[in-house]
Amino acid sequence: MNPIKLRQTLESFFNEDIGGADLTSETIFSPEDKASGSYIVKAPGIICGLPIVAAGYRLIDPAIEVLFHVNEGDHVDTGDEIMSVTGPVRSLLGAERVLLNLLQHMSGIATMTRRAVEILNGSQTRVCDTRKTTPGLRMLEKYAVTVGGGYNHRFGLYDAVMLKDNHIAYAGSIGRAVQKVRTNLGHAVKIEVETTSLEEVKEAVRVKADIIMFDNRSPEDIRRMINEVPEEIVTEASGGIDLSNLAAYARCGVDYISLGCLTHSVRALDISFNLKKIPQPQKLKE
Amino acid sequence: MNPIKLRQTLESFFNEDIGGADLTSETIFSPEDKASGSYIVKAPGIICGLPIVAAGYRLIDPAIEVLFHVNEGDHVDTGDEIMSVTGPVRSLLGAERVLLNLLQHMSGIATMTRRAVEILNGSQTRVCDTRKTTPGLRMLEKYAVTVGGGYNHRFGLYDAVMLKDNHIAYAGSIGRAVQKVRTNLGHAVKIEVETTSLEEVKEAVRVKADIIMFDNRSPEDIRRMINEVPEEIVTEASGGIDLSNLAAYARCGVDYISLGCLTHSVRALDISFNLKKIPQPQKLKE
Amino acid sequence: MNPIKLRQTLESFFNEDIGGADLTSETIFSPEDKASGSYIVKAPGIICGLPIVAAGYRLIDPAIEVLFHVNEGDHVDTGDEIMSVTGPVRSLLGAERVLLNLLQHMSGIATMTRRAVEILNGSQTRVCDTRKTTPGLRMLEKYAVTVGGGYNHRFGLYDAVMLKDNHIAYAGSIGRAVQKVRTNLGHAVKIEVETTSLEEVKEAVRVKADIIMFDNRSPEDIRRMINEVPEEIVTEASGGIDLSNLAAYARCGVDYISLGCLTHSVRALDISFNLKKIPQPQKLKE
Amino acid sequence: MNPIKLRQTLESFFNEDIGGADLTSETIFSPEDKASGSYIVKAPGIICGLPIVAAGYRLIDPAIEVLFHVNEGDHVDTGDEIMSVTGPVRSLLGAERVLLNLLQHMSGIATMTRRAVEILNGSQTRVCDTRKTTPGLRMLEKYAVTVGGGYNHRFGLYDAVMLKDNHIAYAGSIGRAVQKVRTNLGHAVKIEVETTSLEEVKEAVRVKADIIMFDNRSPEDIRRMINEVPEEIVTEASGGIDLSNLAAYARCGVDYISLGCLTHSVRALDISFNLKKIPQPQKLKE
Amino acid sequence: MNPIKLRQTLESFFNEDIGGADLTSETIFSPEDKASGSYIVKAPGIICGLPIVAAGYRLIDPAIEVLFHVNEGDHVDTGDEIMSVTGPVRSLLGAERVLLNLLQHMSGIATMTRRAVEILNGSQTRVCDTRKTTPGLRMLEKYAVTVGGGYNHRFGLYDAVMLKDNHIAYAGSIGRAVQKVRTNLGHAVKIEVETTSLEEVKEAVRVKADIIMFDNRSPEDIRRMINEVPEEIVTEASGGIDLSNLAAYARCGVDYISLGCLTHSVRALDISFNLKKIPQPQKLKE
Amino acid sequence: MNPIKLRQTLESFFNEDIGGADLTSETIFSPEDKASGSYIVKAPGIICGLPIVAAGYRLIDPAIEVLFHVNEGDHVDTGDEIMSVTGPVRSLLGAERVLLNLLQHMSGIATMTRRAVEILNGSQTRVCDTRKTTPGLRMLEKYAVTVGGGYNHRFGLYDAVMLKDNHIAYAGSIGRAVQKVRTNLGHAVKIEVETTSLEEVKEAVRVKADIIMFDNRSPEDIRRMINEVPEEIVTEASGGIDLSNLAAYARCGVDYISLGCLTHSVRALDISFNLKKIPQPQKLKE
Repeated sequence: MNPIKLRQTLESFFNEDIGGADLTSETIFSPEDKASGSYIVKAPGIICGLPIVAAGYRLIDPAIEVLFHVNEGDHVDTGDEIMSVTGPVRSLLGAERVLLNLLQHMSGIATMTRRAVEILNGSQTRVCDTRKTTPGLRMLEKYAVTVGGGYNHRFGLYDAVMLKDNHIAYAGSIGRAVQKVRTNLGHAVKIEVETTSLEEVKEAVRVKADIIMFDNRSPEDIRRMINEVPEEIVTEASGGIDLSNLAAYARCGVDYISLGCLTHSVRALDISFNLKKIPQPQKLKE
Repeated sequence: MNPIKLRQTLESFFNEDIGGADLTSETIFSPEDKASGSYIVKAPGIICGLPIVAAGYRLIDPAIEVLFHVNEGDHVDTGDEIMSVTGPVRSLLGAERVLLNLLQHMSGIATMTRRAVEILNGSQTRVCDTRKTTPGLRMLEKYAVTVGGGYNHRFGLYDAVMLKDNHIAYAGSIGRAVQKVRTNLGHAVKIEVETTSLEEVKEAVRVKADIIMFDNRSPEDIRRMINEVPEEIVTEASGGIDLSNLAAYARCGVDYISLGCLTHSVRALDISFNLKKIPQPQKLKE
Repeated sequence: MNPIKLRQTLESFFNEDIGGADLTSETIFSPEDKASGSYIVKAPGIICGLPIVAAGYRLIDPAIEVLFHVNEGDHVDTGDEIMSVTGPVRSLLGAERVLLNLLQHMSGIATMTRRAVEILNGSQTRVCDTRKTTPGLRMLEKYAVTVGGGYNHRFGLYDAVMLKDNHIAYAGSIGRAVQKVRTNLGHAVKIEVETTSLEEVKEAVRVKADIIMFDNRSPEDIRRMINEVPEEIVTEASGGIDLSNLAAYARCGVDYISLGCLTHSVRALDISFNLKKIPQPQKLKE
Repeated sequence: MNPIKLRQTLESFFNEDIGGADLTSETIFSPEDKASGSYIVKAPGIICGLPIVAAGYRLIDPAIEVLFHVNEGDHVDTGDEIMSVTGPVRSLLGAERVLLNLLQHMSGIATMTRRAVEILNGSQTRVCDTRKTTPGLRMLEKYAVTVGGGYNHRFGLYDAVMLKDNHIAYAGSIGRAVQKVRTNLGHAVKIEVETTSLEEVKEAVRVKADIIMFDNRSPEDIRRMINEVPEEIVTEASGGIDLSNLAAYARCGVDYISLGCLTHSVRALDISFNLKKIPQPQKLKE
Repeated sequence: MNPIKLRQTLESFFNEDIGGADLTSETIFSPEDKASGSYIVKAPGIICGLPIVAAGYRLIDPAIEVLFHVNEGDHVDTGDEIMSVTGPVRSLLGAERVLLNLLQHMSGIATMTRRAVEILNGSQTRVCDTRKTTPGLRMLEKYAVTVGGGYNHRFGLYDAVMLKDNHIAYAGSIGRAVQKVRTNLGHAVKIEVETTSLEEVKEAVRVKADIIMFDNRSPEDIRRMINEVPEEIVTEASGGIDLSNLAAYARCGVDYISLGCLTHSVRALDISFNLKKIPQPQKLKE
Repeated sequence: MNPIKLRQTLESFFNEDIGGADLTSETIFSPEDKASGSYIVKAPGIICGLPIVAAGYRLIDPAIEVLFHVNEGDHVDTGDEIMSVTGPVRSLLGAERVLLNLLQHMSGIATMTRRAVEILNGSQTRVCDTRKTTPGLRMLEKYAVTVGGGYNHRFGLYDAVMLKDNHIAYAGSIGRAVQKVRTNLGHAVKIEVETTSLEEVKEAVRVKADIIMFDNRSPEDIRRMINEVPEEIVTEASGGIDLSNLAAYARCGVDYISLGCLTHSVRALDISFNLKKIPQPQKLKE
């Protein structure tokens, strides 16, 4: 991950939460007061965001020491201590909420992704994400999908071509749309074509799309359509799929299944941060 | 909402998705191609984000006309058309994903908030949010909570004092912590105290905290504790409460119940955007 | 103070003064030339801004060593050396003007605040600031007020409610305005009501405003009005008060007196920076 | 003034004051409520900042109409109405404090500058500013000095060379310092030399400095020193001069007198903003 | 092109050139002075940047009217008038240099690209750019390449995989490197492999790289290597190729030739801007 | 050079190239993999940009060690190793392209400048740059000109006055234009006047312009015109001069010759970066 972009992103997140100052902690604690704290998982899941948390603490206060007890992507269980930190109390509490929000959100994504991956286990089908991400968090959310074992679809409108119904309707046909792209864009960009019928699949195959997407099709439809697609073209099922019906799609032989729910409806993994062992201050500054 | 901050926020969201260019649409459509589109709700819920969407379109292309068919905060049903837009196709498709992601996310929050509000119906208890928001989206998410009928807790570390266990432990007691705040901070800031026992509640009452929070207490505990609190002190229940056990808390007589789940585990409201009536282009620019 | 926001603020200040380069020093000195310098106070006052200066030097050049000879908030006299710094001459001179401007400005605010505080000595009345701050400097100016012994009023339009004449006129009455706020805003926000007559004070008391402000009232008026206010409501005198008539207000028994002059008409504390002991360079780079 | 830089500056100022939202006005007023307001001067002075205020309103809400009753730089008296504005109440009140702070601050600078200019009236001597400006406001403060009839010294370290004692000591002599600059920098940059003795003045003359500054000299000293300076070299008196002793310096025949007090100790010009004629709302939105 | 990103880019460019103010024009002209100006080409070439210039004028002053006399990408000759503008003189001159620099730079790129395209005329080989662009200008320079008739290679490290010698050496072989990418990255990303020998080409073919690049090979080498590559794999020649030896490569049958010289060594197209018809001002403002 | 501005500039350059992540290197290498690399010059020239490269590596990864083998401004020859770096491979490759682009671009400018300086050798005439720089790179490009031995003309519209034909026409005459500037602007700003005829030169001399520019004049014209200019006024030849006709101008006795070609048509100096000695990884992470 680009360390400069990560730093700038975290800076804006901290400014959102801290504003001018942490009124409570700056009133209660002096800059010299130290403590250590611990991150405890409150529900089973996949942990994601440890390097982001480490970068966050470095930004707030380089004097904070961070110690990880698990690895990024590990499965963790209720009660597991995943990380401990030591440093100035003010800094620890000032950074707490933002880092916890990120850690819980990213772990939530990784956890749901892992569940999807496990449902597809035994098949060759991969899980991938979509552009249905939370605005401002795409880099972090797409990273969380990979930590969970999933794959990234395109990152934005700028890094791959996706010919949807409107593009195709406007161009006149899949063939004309693909040709227009080939005529105008270079070789570094993949071309994906959305299809909804056998005829469209055949046309997409004929013009050698890089990826053929079956849009909002049933597993049965896809099984039929996929027969028309030669091995060198990647296939993707998309639309209306979530963890409840994923297994049915796994048996279609499709290469990728894209799941908007991985990022548009994230259930945060419950993680708590507990300050422990605050030594009693020598003399109370009043 | 601050229009300047909203604009800057939307600009960064659009840049995240569009990057340098929308490769597909800029290849297929010419700048002159126009179309109109329609937002259709795919599940019942509370619509939220209409003014944000309007501001977003203005930013991308002032030539886009936006027409709302419902009001912000309205309950909508599957199939309802909430908004229609007309303008250059490139602009409509370039703005689509970001605005849809925001609309779905904010409507998801408003919908869950409304559900919570309805559970509490008949009681005097209000629903409020927490700082467990998605980093970068606090302004928008807290706004969505109010659209759903909920209330906002503090916006960050900068606009209210919240004395938690660590602050209290370090200061020595609730009384000393509150006094330290009163000695050091001015009159424009509210002081909330977290309590977990009857003794703590009594002490918080004695020192006249503005708000007393019952942290992770059962409805029974709260009913007992709340008896000690005079009417002029606001009470709040927090911790471990979600829609499943909210009703039980409603009967405690607490003034506010804060729900982290409103924003940390958002389920997007399903909304689709359909381009319609794209007139066939006169002559295909190839 | 939020360290990230402070850093960004200082960066923009340095860029304003340095632009592309310090033409003079980069021409005369080589990057290796070292020196030490000293900050000397030229008039009695309260020193404020030392941690900001330290942060500023760290930003410009981490090789600069800063040694404080007084503490933040200390009273200093003409001739006192408050700080000495050692490091590359280019960096010392490049940072000089910005840091001196800040130090003098903030010390000016702290000094005037201290004077106000001393006038109120013996009374229970506190001095507080207003939103009449220099645009772009609110965080630093409000901090300087606290260093001088004053208190902060709200930081902006976002962290407290202030019902002024226009709001009240529009809502219909103080009662309706306060109720509208209570109906719409949550519990984390204080409500202050501006009053100009005994009737208004009584109404504000009746609806239990958190703070009642006596706007542009004489000490006599306030003494009369304050009798109507129960102890649990905070009182504030505001408008037309400065150091010349402050003492008269001190005897009214009001809790807070807000002074726009603390920040809207700052008299910089005179402080000079002297480079000393520049060792003669071995060989003159020409 | 650069309109883009002005806009960005104003945006950051508004964000500082408004934050996420103007809690009070957004609660009391609806977006449709309109009003008109008036700026009234409360003390005699020079008005400065009208185009900045106009740009500010445009940023907050293009629907606001601004009507000026005086011209930038006009002398105004207590009670004069300088400007009236009409538009949505929310926008008018949201923009009020920032624009008033700027207007008062800039008018304060223009007023003090005008006073200095009047003291020098009849002489050929001009008043100029220094780099002792409020960080973040240099562009606006230097503009205010010109509106008051003063002149701008260099804008930063980047646009002119100023050889001070340290530079000279390090280079070995005024001659060597000037030569080093001439050897290394191009022809678009003026060279000013600080002098404190007759010898130094003579040396600066000999090497043809563009500007010779008499640093912290008495009027008598300057009168003696200035005799050595040929007409084509500009002279400047600086250090320890303010309005109280300015007249004495006016008779020295120096070309420029630079006054740090114009910007480092600004006394805001008292200006008030009054909302008037708020039509009673048809039906109160509660 | 993303209109928001373009606007932000142009804002930073204007700020670089204008700084606080255009000293000369703001002194000489009043805000009311109007003029019209004309862009004249001084050398034959391909014009590029017209929409960027239009956006730039809108940013500086919406009152400026822009009229194009040629189309983006047109071949122009010495003396051709490509555009005329009318509006406030201050705005026209304030925007002039930045827009001219961009127009000349981008037209320089388009012109050199067109020359390359013409050299390849008659062949199937396309010209493409590289990442050897001017930092900060990639979006604009890559756009200029397309206007000249060339194609864009990847936009950065983020939108395509390029396996170079180091990656291959580290992974152990082309096969292992490609497999590692396929195992870890999704289907939206193209994989290009750099090859320098027949063996490497064969291996890249075997593992079905999307693109095979012949790195620093002679036309003869490439002709030999390309025989091993099946039609569905795109080929690219890169390294050491410029306009002088391009023709030799055209006959190799390679699909793309990437030319760093298109952007790393740009020769600006000479274009001048002439203000014309400045009506004599009624009365000279002095 | 301002270290803060440099850092911000480099951050935006890196973000442009890296985006969210370096897909290739982050897939192939682990964060622990180290390597060392070497910068080799592929053509003779003047090296420029070493401190910028050092700052760039520090930003990307402080763990990278940079060792210079030549000095900034040194003449280098094909095959010279100018710098070696050691550190994490991911960081080395992530920073490579941006730093190489800068180094080549800046060295290209320094090299062309040095060539111009050498052509003028023996004369008193200096080479200087113009505002025809690449937008966004002015600070770096103007620095490169000085490294090559040239001088900087004004940095923007904000730091010197340049009266061109339009200004003069509008003001009525050179005399009136200069006087208008003298009446309105202070002493820290140089005034340059563009002239195209003997009469204009005489008038500019009469009003004592600081700099007289001969615009688009032949060497013969200039020789004639320069006779009218007293020694204390700096002269400059500009317009239509490049390396091919520079020598002819050198003999005119003009003080400065400004060359737009130094920056508007840069030919990058060819420099390559080679990773060497990547130790074989112990065990291949797959």
